[in-house]
Amino acid sequence: MGNKVDLDAFADRLSESLPGISVDCVVFGYDSQQLHVLLLKWKYEEAWSLPGGFVHSSESLDDAAHRVLDERTGLRSIFLQQFHTFGALGRAASGHESDYDKMRKILERMPLKGQKWDINWFAKRFVSTAYFALVDMRRARPHPDFLSERCEWVSLEEVPDLILDHRMMLDMALQYLRRQLQYLPIGRSLLPERFTMPELQGLYEAILGHPLVRSNFQRKMLNLGTLIRHEKLMTGAANKAPYLYSFDPVIYERLLEEGIGF
Amino acid sequence: MGNKVDLDAFADRLSESLPGISVDCVVFGYDSQQLHVLLLKWKYEEAWSLPGGFVHSSESLDDAAHRVLDERTGLRSIFLQQFHTFGALGRAASGHESDYDKMRKILERMPLKGQKWDINWFAKRFVSTAYFALVDMRRARPHPDFLSERCEWVSLEEVPDLILDHRMMLDMALQYLRRQLQYLPIGRSLLPERFTMPELQGLYEAILGHPLVRSNFQRKMLNLGTLIRHEKLMTGAANKAPYLYSFDPVIYERLLEEGIGF
Repeated sequence: MGNKVDLDAFADRLSESLPGISVDCVVFGYDSQQLHVLLLKWKYEEAWSLPGGFVHSSESLDDAAHRVLDERTGLRSIFLQQFHTFGALGRAASGHESDYDKMRKILERMPLKGQKWDINWFAKRFVSTAYFALVDMRRARPHPDFLSERCEWVSLEEVPDLILDHRMMLDMALQYLRRQLQYLPIGRSLLPERFTMPELQGLYEAILGHPLVRSNFQRKMLNLGTLIRHEKLMTGAANKAPYLYSFDPVIYERLLEEGIGF
Repeated sequence: MGNKVDLDAFADRLSESLPGISVDCVVFGYDSQQLHVLLLKWKYEEAWSLPGGFVHSSESLDDAAHRVLDERTGLRSIFLQQFHTFGALGRAASGHESDYDKMRKILERMPLKGQKWDINWFAKRFVSTAYFALVDMRRARPHPDFLSERCEWVSLEEVPDLILDHRMMLDMALQYLRRQLQYLPIGRSLLPERFTMPELQGLYEAILGHPLVRSNFQRKMLNLGTLIRHEKLMTGAANKAPYLYSFDPVIYERLLEEGIGF
């Protein structure tokens, strides 16, 4: 319910942000064989959005995206990449009530309303540069921003209606992920440091949206030469226990440069 | 030397453009076995740039990029795709004299200087969304803008120093082209409607930067089922004349959706 410190900091920052430019982040995580995305549930309104923010005059676009991610997840130096800038006319005009009108209503209920910021600032036309991040969900600590009451992981199949063009952002991020798969540090970013072969295969299947043949997948992955095999994962049935693997970071980087074709 | 009509139109437009946001275009063409890029040579200064412009309040980002392309090449409905937004700090601070200082000097020599526009408008921080276009060079009619004296095709090997971060834009456009090759209408956009197999192969080789085995290339291309064979290209030596091909547009579109893997 409106953290005063957050609000003051936000108002201060707003006055030195670039007008009409924002960043939005599609943060992907992977758990229980499913891709998840980090969403914010707004205060007062039944509205959901991707995490986003404005660009300070002292920040690059990339800096701004990293800051937003840090603020929402507590994670620094995670894999984050720009994929598209959304600059259509009427981005805010979706639905029967514009999403900026909703935002204005939330802002009007905030303790600092109209005092240090210009509420109309939000109603101007914004061009938004969208990033996607690949995150190990176990390490993230989701934290809502001052406009939202909750920040949580939602599996791709359960994503609710999103504000503005955020659904399009999510869909385009997914398409980008699929098409650039071989150049992205999928396994290293989304899995814990040590993982089993079925976990790695499940991750690729979740992104691609279709099953892969187990023997082929395993052979191709091992042939890449980037997997280091460790002890077996201790379960009840010892002789069926799968091996744990991690990535050799040097070979992994080199493979990404050329593309991990498999 | 400064077309009065162009200047007036530009000044009018500037007053209703989004502040701090621009578009730049990497326009690729293909001729004599080489990729070319469309560049502007500035007036008065030894400075070269990519074609670019500002975004009217009534335009989407995509509209603005299409307009710039139309103004510089006379071409409409060409293949144009956004690939990255450049938002680093100090984009204009390259070299011993800032590129915006150079631009200011040019503007100060223009007939309309300071009359209808604010010369400082250009010195603000800009975030620029970059597009690349694939163009049939034979159909383009290069036309300089009011800041430049020439607009011309330059082969990739002969590209001079470019202003701001335009060299980085060109390099990133090329990388994008290579990585997204299978999803881009390379052949249909860059070649004339009818072409020979060696021309098609030369185009792919120019983009990839390495030679391809002729028999493999030809077999894979024919197996795609999108090539329509026409009469032979009439040359002096009739029995050595190569066949002309064109693309079946419906099959081509469908292949692009899935990716033309070859």
